[in-house]
This record gives sequence, structure tokens and C-alpha cells, in this order.
Amino acid sequence: MTGTIGYLGPKGTFTKIAVDSMFNGEKKKSYQTIPECIDAVSNQEVKYAVLPLENAIEGTVNITLDYLIQTKNIKIVSEVIVPIRQHFMVHPSNVKTWEAVEGVYSHSHAIAQCHSFLRQKFPSLDSHSMKSTGAAAEYVSQHPERNIAAIANHLAAKEYDLSIVEKDIHDFDNNHTRFVVLHHNETSLSSTQLEERGQKTTLTISLPSDRPGALHQVLSAFAWRHLNLSKIESRPMKTGLGHYYFLIDIEQKMDDVLIPNAIAELESLGCTVDVLGSYPYYLYNGNGVTLAV
Amino acid sequence: MTGTIGYLGPKGTFTKIAVDSMFNGEKKKSYQTIPECIDAVSNQEVKYAVLPLENAIEGTVNITLDYLIQTKNIKIVSEVIVPIRQHFMVHPSNVKTWEAVEGVYSHSHAIAQCHSFLRQKFPSLDSHSMKSTGAAAEYVSQHPERNIAAIANHLAAKEYDLSIVEKDIHDFDNNHTRFVVLHHNETSLSSTQLEERGQKTTLTISLPSDRPGALHQVLSAFAWRHLNLSKIESRPMKTGLGHYYFLIDIEQKMDDVLIPNAIAELESLGCTVDVLGSYPYYLYNGNGVTLAV
Repeated sequence: MTGTIGYLGPKGTFTKIAVDSMFNGEKKKSYQTIPECIDAVSNQEVKYAVLPLENAIEGTVNITLDYLIQTKNIKIVSEVIVPIRQHFMVHPSNVKTWEAVEGVYSHSHAIAQCHSFLRQKFPSLDSHSMKSTGAAAEYVSQHPERNIAAIANHLAAKEYDLSIVEKDIHDFDNNHTRFVVLHHNETSLSSTQLEERGQKTTLTISLPSDRPGALHQVLSAFAWRHLNLSKIESRPMKTGLGHYYFLIDIEQKMDDVLIPNAIAELESLGCTVDVLGSYPYYLYNGNGVTLAV
Repeated sequence: MTGTIGYLGPKGTFTKIAVDSMFNGEKKKSYQTIPECIDAVSNQEVKYAVLPLENAIEGTVNITLDYLIQTKNIKIVSEVIVPIRQHFMVHPSNVKTWEAVEGVYSHSHAIAQCHSFLRQKFPSLDSHSMKSTGAAAEYVSQHPERNIAAIANHLAAKEYDLSIVEKDIHDFDNNHTRFVVLHHNETSLSSTQLEERGQKTTLTISLPSDRPGALHQVLSAFAWRHLNLSKIESRPMKTGLGHYYFLIDIEQKMDDVLIPNAIAELESLGCTVDVLGSYPYYLYNGNGVTLAV
């Protein structure tokens, strides 16, 4: 099983788009939960695991991070950013009557993210929340006798043979989901299918005490070395009350001097620093959509 | 309708715990999506709206923030922090046989967050993901003939008459969800039922250009004034590519000198600063649990 790729199921989701964009031909195994999938790569039941780190739909960032930080023997080795594009889709037998649909099915967050479209086009349409956008597409595919629609991505339309009748119906254009590839050692993984957008090093830094200006002091270690931070987020520690750690992305790969020196200085100030990975990142751009109308 | 409180439904969720802890006796109206609820308070169909800002289960932070930032005429006027405590519950007729349950129902994230408990106690139990923890509790309450369990909070147990047979089964103790109270003017709202934990001022700051050290410079404006930041998060702008804004919580209420001066200086450096609110925050601690076994 060492060549298998684990990922968070089910099919027809944005995670499946990410795993297919990175891996082509390998055996893939879906897991029902993030911790199960992290356990599998930690125990080497699978070689790599693909999981959402920031998910603009299902919001799983906390779970992946919580378990990743706990599991010391795995690293982030690659990243794929998938734009979140939501489409309005119906069963092929209902394409001609789609403007008279009597209900829409999707994940509640996807329904929320298509608020303007729904309000303008269907001001009084019943919406039904499902456990995932993929489950909504499956439901619509199984009920051709009902004139109903799903909001989901293009892969779900393909997977469940639905027809996209209106594309890109989401309110905000710049939503995306970050997927990380996890591995039991730190050798970064390059994609042969996607164009590299850059390199990142992800750190967690916890401060010795919560005092005004502590974060400012930590950032000085990066700023004067001209290490650009593309992300910073404070997050509560899972032990103790009122303490925070910081999740930081440095916009370059681990080097021999600058990043190790910054880390050594932070540690000498009493901070705890963990390197979650140093890896290339990619943008998936292949979600072309063909309208059925 | 001006006295009504809008909130993100359905019943039996953590949002309902938050709204009930802040408001007692007022008429309440549930909305199916976050944007609908924000529209309602913006249009003054409801007086206040209660929404999750950081939700450790359903992860809705992005949606609330995206629509809150867009809707200029409303402010955050109060905040309630609700610890996320998950319990294992069954129909009262199955209390004696709960250790032989043949399936567990919950939101997929709640199942993930109870990974250690499930793996140790029920290593081969089928788990079924539902659209919310409340929906899972409802399902279990409607199927007394099946020996199944739900993972949900104590309010769901009460709402659907289920018996809690194991309490606090979540992996991490320090998970919580932040709920904000929104209002169409900026007068902060004090709770008469909860103990105040402090005051916060929430800002969004966008930088004029993405260059190394820009964030460090911004934080200097707060650091030398000893304005303590309890949260900082970089988030992608919804317009343009690769640009970020920062969401910052200052651990004090808006004053006449320090915060306005910091904002004025940041604006003179070319930053755009918006005040999302200055408000008291509260911790909800009333989720006592009685075990049925």
C-alpha cells in the first residue's frame, strides 16, 4: 500500500479536484475524516495524504491544523490552491425548464456564498442544505422526476452527469481552498502537471508570554531579513487558557542561513518554533465549464 | 419587528446557545443562511443579529466576515464565546445498551473532533455525516427502534429529548466558537446575564502594497502605544489577486486618543482602516451536563 494516496472523501468535492491535479495514475483511497487520513499517512498506510488546510466552503482549517501540529512525524510537502467556483446544475432531462426549478440543494455555506445570484434570479426558491455539495449533486441526479437544482463544482456535475445551466454563480471571485500534501518525511513534492507559483515555508511560533508588542518583536526577526510573510494567523493554544500561537507562511523555501537564524533567535527569546514544511505551491486552473444552455 | 433578534438556525446548535445566553424573552427569528441574516439586520427587519464569527465545528468565519465587511451600515456590538463541548447521546430507550450502538450520527467535523474517543471506545463503528449536529440529534430522536447515537451539544440533547451517556468526548479542550451580535449602529450591547471578560476593538487594515516588512510597520503603530493585539489574521482581498488585508483585535475599547491616532497614522501611510466594532465580550459557561448513566 506504500504507493497509495489518501484523501478526504467523498468524490465530487474540491478535495478530489486537488488530489487528481497532483496525482495521476496512483491508487487513491478516500477517508471519512481528517484525523483518520492524517493517521494513515503517519502510520505509512498511505504514502501521501491530501487534505484541505483552508476550505472556503466547509471550513476545515482548524481540524487539519490541530491534528497536523499534534502528529510530529509528518510534514507538508506540497500545496495546491483550487479556486472555488460554484455552478447551478440540473438533471439533463430538466435543462429546458431550469428557470422554473422548485428547489435548490447544496451545502449551507455554498448556498450562502451564492446569495446574490439566488436572491436576484430566484427570490423565493426553497433551499435545502445537505452535508456536502457532492451529496447535493448526487441527490439531484437521483431525482430526475423533480425539477430541482444543485449548487456544486464542475467535478460534481461530471461525476453525477448533471448539466450546468449557469456558471460562476458565487458572490466573491477570489475564494479559494488550499490543499496540502502530507508525507512522513520532509522531501518536498513537485507536480509534473501544474505550474509552480512559488515556494513557502510554514512555521508555528508560540510566544513565552502574552504581552503587548510580543508579536511585533517576533515579526522583526523576519522583517529586517526581508523575509516576506504571505500569511499570519493567531490561533488559540489547545492547552492552557488565553494563550496564542502564530501560524506564519514565509514566501520562500527553507535556506541555510536566513530562516534558520531567525528561528534560532526566536528560540533564544523563549519562543517555541515548529517547521510544518517547506514546499512548492501550485494553482489549479483546469476547471473549464461548458454550459448546457 | 424592531425588537426581534435574528440568528443563524436551526435550533439545537451552538448559535442558539449563544443567542439564548445574550437575549432572554425577546422574539427570535432564525435564518437559513448568514447573508440572509446580515441583510435582515442591515434592513432593520430585525434589531440585532447573532452569527458565528469563528466556528470550530462548521467553520463559517469566512462567510460572516465577507458579508459583514461588505455591509457598511452595521457594526459588531457584542460578542459571546461558547466552548465547544461534544457529548455522546442516545434515545432514552437505548440508555442501557448504548455501549453496543451500531452507528453514530453527527456533522463530519464533530465526528473528526471526537476521533480519539471513537477510535478507543468504538474502533469499528459506522459513522454517518449529517448537515449539522442538531440534524443528527433530531434523526436519532426519530429512530428509537435503532440502537444509534448522536454527537452533539447539551442543547441538542435537551431539544430532542436525548440522554447523554458520555460527556466531553472531544479531543481538544480549548475549542470554542465566537459569536458576534450585529446592530445597525455602533452602540455596544452589554449582557445582563453573562460576566464580562473584557473589551475589544476589531479593525480591518489593508496595506498599500505587498512588500516585506509592511505588516511589521503596521504593528509598530500598535506596539509602541502598548495596544495589545489578541488576534491577527491575514486574509485575501476579494478584489484583485494576491493582496491581503489584516483582521486585528485590540484588547481594549475605542478610546479618544491612542486608537484614533494609530488609525490616522496608518491612513497617512496609505493603509485603509475600517472599524468593525468596539464591544464587550463574554464567556458562556452554563453548559452543565447530567449523565444518564
